[in-house]
Amino acid sequence: MEKETGRLEAFSDGVFAIAITLLILEISVPNLQAAATSTDLLVAIGHLWPSFVAFLFSFFVILIMWINHHEFMRWVRVCDYQLFFANGLVLLGVTFVPFPTAVVARYLGTGAARGAAVFYCGTFFFISLAYQILLRSVTRRRRLLRDDIPDDLLARAHRAYNFGPLVYALATGLAWWSAIAGMALCASLWILWARFRYRSFEAM
Amino acid sequence: MEKETGRLEAFSDGVFAIAITLLILEISVPNLQAAATSTDLLVAIGHLWPSFVAFLFSFFVILIMWINHHEFMRWVRVCDYQLFFANGLVLLGVTFVPFPTAVVARYLGTGAARGAAVFYCGTFFFISLAYQILLRSVTRRRRLLRDDIPDDLLARAHRAYNFGPLVYALATGLAWWSAIAGMALCASLWILWARFRYRSFEAM
Amino acid sequence: MEKETGRLEAFSDGVFAIAITLLILEISVPNLQAAATSTDLLVAIGHLWPSFVAFLFSFFVILIMWINHHEFMRWVRVCDYQLFFANGLVLLGVTFVPFPTAVVARYLGTGAARGAAVFYCGTFFFISLAYQILLRSVTRRRRLLRDDIPDDLLARAHRAYNFGPLVYALATGLAWWSAIAGMALCASLWILWARFRYRSFEAM
Amino acid sequence: MEKETGRLEAFSDGVFAIAITLLILEISVPNLQAAATSTDLLVAIGHLWPSFVAFLFSFFVILIMWINHHEFMRWVRVCDYQLFFANGLVLLGVTFVPFPTAVVARYLGTGAARGAAVFYCGTFFFISLAYQILLRSVTRRRRLLRDDIPDDLLARAHRAYNFGPLVYALATGLAWWSAIAGMALCASLWILWARFRYRSFEAM
Repeated sequence: MEKETGRLEAFSDGVFAIAITLLILEISVPNLQAAATSTDLLVAIGHLWPSFVAFLFSFFVILIMWINHHEFMRWVRVCDYQLFFANGLVLLGVTFVPFPTAVVARYLGTGAARGAAVFYCGTFFFISLAYQILLRSVTRRRRLLRDDIPDDLLARAHRAYNFGPLVYALATGLAWWSAIAGMALCASLWILWARFRYRSFEAM
Repeated sequence: MEKETGRLEAFSDGVFAIAITLLILEISVPNLQAAATSTDLLVAIGHLWPSFVAFLFSFFVILIMWINHHEFMRWVRVCDYQLFFANGLVLLGVTFVPFPTAVVARYLGTGAARGAAVFYCGTFFFISLAYQILLRSVTRRRRLLRDDIPDDLLARAHRAYNFGPLVYALATGLAWWSAIAGMALCASLWILWARFRYRSFEAM
Repeated sequence: MEKETGRLEAFSDGVFAIAITLLILEISVPNLQAAATSTDLLVAIGHLWPSFVAFLFSFFVILIMWINHHEFMRWVRVCDYQLFFANGLVLLGVTFVPFPTAVVARYLGTGAARGAAVFYCGTFFFISLAYQILLRSVTRRRRLLRDDIPDDLLARAHRAYNFGPLVYALATGLAWWSAIAGMALCASLWILWARFRYRSFEAM
Repeated sequence: MEKETGRLEAFSDGVFAIAITLLILEISVPNLQAAATSTDLLVAIGHLWPSFVAFLFSFFVILIMWINHHEFMRWVRVCDYQLFFANGLVLLGVTFVPFPTAVVARYLGTGAARGAAVFYCGTFFFISLAYQILLRSVTRRRRLLRDDIPDDLLARAHRAYNFGPLVYALATGLAWWSAIAGMALCASLWILWARFRYRSFEAM
């Protein structure tokens, strides 16, 4: 039995939109003493830089994940239950993102920075595995896909996504050695993906 | 008077999507001392296992509840006010889920584990009653349903859902004796449902 | 200039769905000592009764507000900017509801119960004024409405909604004398509305 | 390659709807002592006025931002990746709003009021730059737009939006001198925009 993708996309869009908007709740207002001046407040907000870094990182990665999810779903003509549960795994990852984001926000500027970065990069390692499963569920049977999706687009997507878990595993290892290096590797991957997608769409 | 199900589904999808995404807010970042190391942080995150268990459980149960809700609504051709209020009861249950989840997250690893598990399983007992009412509102009058929904599908659904409150009542009782046993019974029910749905759809 | 109501309804549905789902975040997990037993936990959850009352009240009132909003929008054929801003006022009220709900949850069982109930009923007094403005924006010009909406349906709606602010003003005053009496008057109004809507739809 | 705007609008609507509804979470229930009376509670709620001001301000500015976003998207016929990322920047701004709102809510009534107002106005300076980028992405290539959008509507929009960053920069500077003056300048801009939109639509 097969069903149309309409409500699946609407539900997933809802989860992505909520997860990306909840991120800000993890930044808490600095708690100053009654005598604090305006300068004190702006300095205290400046000290929240790890929160802002974590917020920006997670915002853009959820945005890119949403764009990619969008792309996969655009290929799908009909949707079976394996795809349903693979999509559920991806959403599990998406809803989890605010927690490692909060961990990085809280500990990036402390002596536990490397632990926070390992946890953060490791989360994206698992999410990239979920995307692998989703991609395989989508492309497993040609008849589930729209006719106008060329095979080499799927082949290219497979190559790009095989790359993902490898880089995230590396980033997770690297983060144990240097928090900044691990997170920078993740960020470089996102910029690469954004550029790749941008280019591949310009080319079509 | 009857109305189409479009906005009812959109509203319900919104509530399911938000409830499933709010679950993560109940996991709070461990609060370590300034001198904490990266290892301390990862150990502290590991100690949050009851939160992760509660998160995973509630994530998958809301996902399955959404899939089932989806299925019921797919049968409906027109929608009257009794269905409207029955749907409201189900949504009441869905929006409530983050609270027992937080109770389990906070107390599963403590001496009050059994109380937390009783409250958690008991919540799903009430939700399964709400699903009973929804199912009855949907199937009550044949003319509200789409013509291509076979009667034996409805009969099978009734049998499957009659099962629900019984198992949850049992799980609630069992949880008072052992938290793990009660929650495992709930989980086994969800796996059963996911498999059942998977199978029944493969068969069609 | 006039625009179709599609995105207005989608946006409003989103706000209603989120507001109704956020209510649960205002109930916090009881904070017991390490030696607490399962019985202690269940007793402590029982002591949260004002939170559950507030949650139930606000859940059903938002649900009824959503159904009524739905109904108004069903009448509208085209939508001008006055309707846009009137709708904004109603949404302002809807997003505000979780705050008085939290106030009632926190203070209904204390010596400040009457103050909490006054604030809660007073909020709905203002929301009922916003609904008045929305209803007037919707019905102000016949050409904005669908042709098949009979005039006497609008007349009945006007009578029903004129009633609202009066009863809420009375409930707010009553709450200063007795918290329970004020909140019971609000609840009776909601039951009346739910029944009225149910009946009027059965009759059509 | 170009894609239709459907899911982009649905996702953006979701983010706007969630951001506007999360604002209320930043107002916390006053924490009174056990012996507090109903009058104490109402007085304490009155002392939350900076929270209510911040809530109202941010509610209406997100509503206006949503209406404008809506308007831009109405012009667009097809949507390329530059528009995708420009839209992402705007959403980054929208999701960020609850944080400066909470800062103003917490500090407007204190000696650090000017710092809070500078941060708040400065946030809208950056958001107005994001809207500039979005507007330019939308209008950059005539073939991305619907044919029935007249050129002078675009020209007027450009003039109106060039205005934005200038006024917000001024408001940010002014806020350092007087918190109230800076925030009043922002508010006057919103009223102007709401009136302008209202008028321009009446005229068409």
